[in-house]
Amino acid sequence: MTTKKSGGLAEVIAGQTAISTVGKTGKGLTYRGYSIHDLAEYGTFEETAYLLIRGKLPDAGELAAYKRKLAAGRTIPPGLRTLLECLPASSHPMDVLRTGLSALASFEPETEATDPRELADRLLAISPSVLLYWHHFHQSGDRIDTETESDSVAGHFLELLHRRPPAELHERVMDVSLILYAEHEYNASTFAARVTASTLSDFYSAVTTGIGTLRGPLHGGANEAAMELIGRYENPEQAEAGVMRLLGGKKLVMGFGHRVYTVSDPRSDIIKALSRTLSEQNGDWRLFTVSERIEEVMRREKGLFPNLDFYSASAYTLMQIPVSFFTPVFVFSRISGWAAHIIEQRESNRLIRPSAEYTGPEPLPWFRLEDRGQGAVTP
Amino acid sequence: MTTKKSGGLAEVIAGQTAISTVGKTGKGLTYRGYSIHDLAEYGTFEETAYLLIRGKLPDAGELAAYKRKLAAGRTIPPGLRTLLECLPASSHPMDVLRTGLSALASFEPETEATDPRELADRLLAISPSVLLYWHHFHQSGDRIDTETESDSVAGHFLELLHRRPPAELHERVMDVSLILYAEHEYNASTFAARVTASTLSDFYSAVTTGIGTLRGPLHGGANEAAMELIGRYENPEQAEAGVMRLLGGKKLVMGFGHRVYTVSDPRSDIIKALSRTLSEQNGDWRLFTVSERIEEVMRREKGLFPNLDFYSASAYTLMQIPVSFFTPVFVFSRISGWAAHIIEQRESNRLIRPSAEYTGPEPLPWFRLEDRGQGAVTP
Repeated sequence: MTTKKSGGLAEVIAGQTAISTVGKTGKGLTYRGYSIHDLAEYGTFEETAYLLIRGKLPDAGELAAYKRKLAAGRTIPPGLRTLLECLPASSHPMDVLRTGLSALASFEPETEATDPRELADRLLAISPSVLLYWHHFHQSGDRIDTETESDSVAGHFLELLHRRPPAELHERVMDVSLILYAEHEYNASTFAARVTASTLSDFYSAVTTGIGTLRGPLHGGANEAAMELIGRYENPEQAEAGVMRLLGGKKLVMGFGHRVYTVSDPRSDIIKALSRTLSEQNGDWRLFTVSERIEEVMRREKGLFPNLDFYSASAYTLMQIPVSFFTPVFVFSRISGWAAHIIEQRESNRLIRPSAEYTGPEPLPWFRLEDRGQGAVTP
Repeated sequence: MTTKKSGGLAEVIAGQTAISTVGKTGKGLTYRGYSIHDLAEYGTFEETAYLLIRGKLPDAGELAAYKRKLAAGRTIPPGLRTLLECLPASSHPMDVLRTGLSALASFEPETEATDPRELADRLLAISPSVLLYWHHFHQSGDRIDTETESDSVAGHFLELLHRRPPAELHERVMDVSLILYAEHEYNASTFAARVTASTLSDFYSAVTTGIGTLRGPLHGGANEAAMELIGRYENPEQAEAGVMRLLGGKKLVMGFGHRVYTVSDPRSDIIKALSRTLSEQNGDWRLFTVSERIEEVMRREKGLFPNLDFYSASAYTLMQIPVSFFTPVFVFSRISGWAAHIIEQRESNRLIRPSAEYTGPEPLPWFRLEDRGQGAVTP
């Protein structure tokens, strides 16, 4: 029995995984053995999702078939479309995704006969449709067709969002971003999804847990918080002064540091380079130069490095993605990692049920209702 | 750093809690210091929920006000009623609760100004309404009024379910059952809800996680699985033969043993006595005698004791509660415990993010798409 006074299970090994390495010396970040750098440079998100969910890279025929399957999974059942219309325009987009995918369980329940890999593909394929059907219905009253000609998740999402096929560069940047966000070992949302799966609950419940857990600003919500910060400043000088003030006030600056990484986040340079390319193409360097200055200040003042969330913020904004959709994009990608972990958890399941250190009152005598009050029962 | 080869974080201390004791020598099961026996014998579920969420027993005035508040919280917003009507009649009741409470976030979002205790009360109050509005709409087409005259959660639920005020004994048994199910330290659903809360996600997300995690047969679903077993047998002799066959086939028998308790579940005798009283009043001893025989066989053959779920199954059935509503009843009660833990987690939060032992492949070289296939890339 171990008591970690530091809390948060930091450095406690909660189980095994063959899916990815995070911060293992000499291994960098790999998905099923493949370096994140190779995947981002030579691969696509569909190959990555296939790799995570099915354990191997697809060959050419398998990849083509997989893309066709994902394309066929973009349709929302009519009952779910009506349900999404009931969710108010003011809803938080993460709440729409959490409710939407939770509700899909009622229309397409998991049964003994369900192959969890097929269900994972369905959720991966339908998620952008769910968010953007709701979005356009409330923005313009349009009940959009959620089918597109795009053969990638990245292209499909961007086309549904902007209602025109995306620029090639944008599709590629989004694709790489989805690769980078796909999987990250026992991060909080994945770990929570594994706890849900460990009671032998259904696949939808575990994914719903993942979405709800990712929503927090200490996890997926960090990219939105980073953009909120970057967006405050007109130029690097303002940014420097602003961040120094925040640090002076002991405020948390989101998008920096990591529970597991101690020197750098291997994903950060990749997304930073793409953010630079987008700035160049847009001919607008404000966000990038502000971001770089914040990076400099954080390194100098706190010894902290940017994590994946930090340069994702400017990259997304340069592609006209609304800030409130940043964390949903994370969902579209991370579903592949959650799915791989849910399946892995089921394969050698044991209920995840830790213990707690009790710090409450010693046993108390009962007080009848009429004898309470005046603090008599507060230990 | 600790590797628990046993897995499932068994006996690993994942944090602190002042809310309840489970299996602590000499302490029995207490909620904030009060023995579960005193609460079940002298208290009510509303006092229990108040105690868990607010940290002290209410005095007479506070209790009356609390009951009025809960009664006022039974109304479903019109938009959510429409949404519930969209969920098919074939939905799993736990899916309805998970989606329904997730969706409530869109209608009544948590904001900086929200008191989480008030939100906890709202969720506690509305949950039976959500399930039974959906239920009756699909059973009879009726859009029921979810307000009742009952001043207790137990009475409200039974009245909404059967559409008539419950017998006094039934209301009392349900009330005690809600007390017994309210809280249980770092059980899987509570722990998962704490992981969600630890990213500073919203209250609804954490509760949605709790529902999805409770749904599994190794957790809340166990009472349904127990009833499925008990219901198979006409008499004790059949039960004995049937359970012996299951054990011979190495099948898991649900409703027995516990991760933390090793000798007995202190809640079991309480619900067993109530199941006996209900059998007596109904003049129908089949379920009770079958249950007792299964208990005998499990003790003799496996050294296992019944946990709370086991006699809850017959008690619920004797009150004409459909089996598929057993786990939802657990939700109506456990929301109080989840709420207490979410609030406690927030009060001294640290992100819950463990590590994992990597068991996957060593770093692999990249294979171009055209070079894959024939097993070349499967490590």
